[in-house]
Amino acid sequence: MEKIKIGIAGYGNLGKACEQLIKDDSNFELVGVFSRRSSKQTIMLERIEEYKDKIDVLLICVGSSTDAPKLVPELAKHFNTVDSFDTHATLPQYIESIKASTATGSTTAIVATGWDPGLFSLLRIYFDSFLTNTQSQTFWGSGVSLGHSNAIKDITDVKDAIQFTVPVKESITYAKRGIQIPSTKKHRRVCYVVAPEAHHARIEKEIKTMPNYFAGYETEVNFISQSLFNKKFKNRKEHAGLVVSSDLSSKISFHLKLKSNPRFTAQVMLSYAIANFNLQKESNKGVFTVADIAPRYLCKSEYINKI
Amino acid sequence: MEKIKIGIAGYGNLGKACEQLIKDDSNFELVGVFSRRSSKQTIMLERIEEYKDKIDVLLICVGSSTDAPKLVPELAKHFNTVDSFDTHATLPQYIESIKASTATGSTTAIVATGWDPGLFSLLRIYFDSFLTNTQSQTFWGSGVSLGHSNAIKDITDVKDAIQFTVPVKESITYAKRGIQIPSTKKHRRVCYVVAPEAHHARIEKEIKTMPNYFAGYETEVNFISQSLFNKKFKNRKEHAGLVVSSDLSSKISFHLKLKSNPRFTAQVMLSYAIANFNLQKESNKGVFTVADIAPRYLCKSEYINKI
Repeated sequence: MEKIKIGIAGYGNLGKACEQLIKDDSNFELVGVFSRRSSKQTIMLERIEEYKDKIDVLLICVGSSTDAPKLVPELAKHFNTVDSFDTHATLPQYIESIKASTATGSTTAIVATGWDPGLFSLLRIYFDSFLTNTQSQTFWGSGVSLGHSNAIKDITDVKDAIQFTVPVKESITYAKRGIQIPSTKKHRRVCYVVAPEAHHARIEKEIKTMPNYFAGYETEVNFISQSLFNKKFKNRKEHAGLVVSSDLSSKISFHLKLKSNPRFTAQVMLSYAIANFNLQKESNKGVFTVADIAPRYLCKSEYINKI
Repeated sequence: MEKIKIGIAGYGNLGKACEQLIKDDSNFELVGVFSRRSSKQTIMLERIEEYKDKIDVLLICVGSSTDAPKLVPELAKHFNTVDSFDTHATLPQYIESIKASTATGSTTAIVATGWDPGLFSLLRIYFDSFLTNTQSQTFWGSGVSLGHSNAIKDITDVKDAIQFTVPVKESITYAKRGIQIPSTKKHRRVCYVVAPEAHHARIEKEIKTMPNYFAGYETEVNFISQSLFNKKFKNRKEHAGLVVSSDLSSKISFHLKLKSNPRFTAQVMLSYAIANFNLQKESNKGVFTVADIAPRYLCKSEYINKI
């Protein structure tokens, strides 16, 4: 198979994980890493259009909350993209906003890859199809939630913070029996926060009452020193997840454990870069989710031996 | 969604499981069960062509070893089919033999659905794509292997037999760490056999030396009376399976436990009957494996909430 020429937009943890994987994999060739910040390793993002005929697939490694919705509809006019957009609630609007771009540029965009959304989405679709009168349930953790950590950091006077999402064991047991568990009873939220002591009470209250993120959940807030925080929690990247389902005669359970959340997300993105390349060869243009792509498109070579 | 009109070819355990599920599911309407044996519940298979405009999808519920390879290439000329063909070694030839038929009749055939091949094939493809420099490993059991049970029954003087495939715990532990285990070390084979005492020694030797099925495996042969056999082992249908994989930074494990092997196989076949119906609507003709079908085709309704 010819090498797939890859560009990376964004140079945080995810962009760096993609870069490393590409260097270790002979299926790919790295054309360049594009960033809005100037550095020796990167090319200025504003110059990316100069590379539009040199890149087969552009990996989008910017944040989902504000950057991706702004950038991807622009980039998808000129580039075939793969992203790991992960805001479930706004995914339909996100897809719509890219549709016009892929039509203009006759490009192929694959959105919301990674592990959840991504691998877990696939499992939910298959499990809910194959089991009868039931719905699969997803648990996350134990692991670091970047979104929740950032929500705490946004509180006034917080210097540093990390949030561990911890699945509730009893809820997993019930879920495995097919009993539907409400979202707030599935996870506990354990927070480690660095802040001046005078503000502890207010910060703890602000965390525990934060809508969507913490309100309704069993939330534990621990204040610790910056030095202990640095020692125990800097660069923690592990995560885990579980998808379970059961009906009257069948039980299914899937478990994923990751040392590095960004590395696994990057691995899934690169698999969908292969899919993107294979779709291009068949002139399959437009916006695709993982649900729209037949598994064979992910395969570098023969797959009949896996059936 | 309009009701999908289903025909069933074959009226063994699998055909009966399909019949029951269709009766309980308002997505489907049962047109008829076709069998080579005459019965009150079935229509003679030789008359099936009379029904060719009345059936949207025909479920193939005959055996994989000899019946399906003979019947399906004929039936696929007139019907859109879903089967659970499970002889991995001859799958490529099987697919080729049906291709001409679907071209002639412009029909849609989905082959080798079920749990393995089927669900497990999908998992192997996804896991091997998403993890780096590793191969997923599959374990079966504890559960009843029909193929191995029948292989024992074919030995002279055997009156009845059942074979339990039992995964080796230590091998699962190693496999979860990413160590490749040879096939014969993954499973033990536990057999219960009814036969006259005079023949026990010969039968045990014939079982343990049977190539492909038992030779090389740790095999336990227990001779028991027909009455005990009937009491403990008649109508045992449970099975289970495991797909695991791991690389330097990720561990994946998937576990399936079934009270009724034929029931779950029937559930997967009906999911692919929906896929077949959706493919027909888009004039997608030809032969498909589960790897060739995007997950969204399995969905009866909106699936964006599962992503």
